[in-house]
Amino acid sequence: MKNFNKADIQEMDQRFRARMINSIGGFKSVNLVGTVDGKGNPNLSIVSSVFHLGANPALMGFVMRPITVTRDTFLNIKETGFYTFNSITSDIFKQAHQTSARYPAEVSEFDAVDLNAVFKKEFPAPFVSESPVQIGLAFKEQIDVKLNGTVMMIGEIQEIFIPENCLLDDGFIDIEKAGSITCSGLDAYYSTRKIARLSYAKPDLNISEI
Amino acid sequence: MKNFNKADIQEMDQRFRARMINSIGGFKSVNLVGTVDGKGNPNLSIVSSVFHLGANPALMGFVMRPITVTRDTFLNIKETGFYTFNSITSDIFKQAHQTSARYPAEVSEFDAVDLNAVFKKEFPAPFVSESPVQIGLAFKEQIDVKLNGTVMMIGEIQEIFIPENCLLDDGFIDIEKAGSITCSGLDAYYSTRKIARLSYAKPDLNISEI
Repeated sequence: MKNFNKADIQEMDQRFRARMINSIGGFKSVNLVGTVDGKGNPNLSIVSSVFHLGANPALMGFVMRPITVTRDTFLNIKETGFYTFNSITSDIFKQAHQTSARYPAEVSEFDAVDLNAVFKKEFPAPFVSESPVQIGLAFKEQIDVKLNGTVMMIGEIQEIFIPENCLLDDGFIDIEKAGSITCSGLDAYYSTRKIARLSYAKPDLNISEI
Repeated sequence: MKNFNKADIQEMDQRFRARMINSIGGFKSVNLVGTVDGKGNPNLSIVSSVFHLGANPALMGFVMRPITVTRDTFLNIKETGFYTFNSITSDIFKQAHQTSARYPAEVSEFDAVDLNAVFKKEFPAPFVSESPVQIGLAFKEQIDVKLNGTVMMIGEIQEIFIPENCLLDDGFIDIEKAGSITCSGLDAYYSTRKIARLSYAKPDLNISEI
């Protein structure tokens, strides 16, 4: 095995280190974040840092750097209080990746990459029409990480739209069936193949596939 | 499409809601967290909430509920200041899942599920011998999320052990080649198949596969 210690990591070329540290923690969720500014101009950005925070209330977080390409997303969420997470499939992953380009604030990434913004019910932020799994969130809390200047944006789920045939009887959403893909690092995308669902684990009980 | 709003979510059966909200955000990283208590007794727990926080310094976070099954992990990190993340492959995913059972504090999950703890160099927390990707971290900051009582544990990478043939020339770690799997929800595990790596996105430039 190859070993790197803290000093080795600090001495790496910046881009080499970014690729390594971004890919070491495992496969990641990948979503498109939809917002509008105060004038209703839409914005779309790809994020690979969405995480589950709790089910009751239904909270999700994501990490961002407010000074980089996600600056418009950050400002829009702060201004309007609402945003959407939209799943990425193998049909749209190149367009989704392209939203990470540094477009001027006045350019809608929806138009630039040819994805369709759709507004549903009274929800104030746009969903991605091409995404099978769509989540509308209300902004709840900004957590500043002083160690490196990143921020975590915490939101509560307000609306869920999922394909009817992907919701199982026990509540589990079959996101593989919905076409969701996963990613690693800054630029690698993967489809999945289910190995198994496992039963709830208890001491002295053999787990089984469910 | 099927639609659920905030009120629908609140009225769901607790376990139904937990399965749904845990699976909606996309595929997740899955790792084993290795720790010891002040007497050197090892502990191992599975987490699906590890996220990348920054590359310089190399910071990673994970979410936990200190009052549940990860209580020992939480206390051990606070007591010793060190822990490890270890990748999960299809060879050990059932054993990894079994660590989520509520074993008494005096039981080592390494023994209970038959995984091997290995200590490397001077690092104070145990790595999982069967895991191809092993990360040693120093605890840096605890962030309490008042919205729901969860905590985020932030750590800085001190040691990395990866298979020699999984590190690409540009720094990217091929975790698929290393056998890492991904998960969804509370209990579903998946292998991956690479679709593509994509070039750095710029406005008015077509992205290409790299």
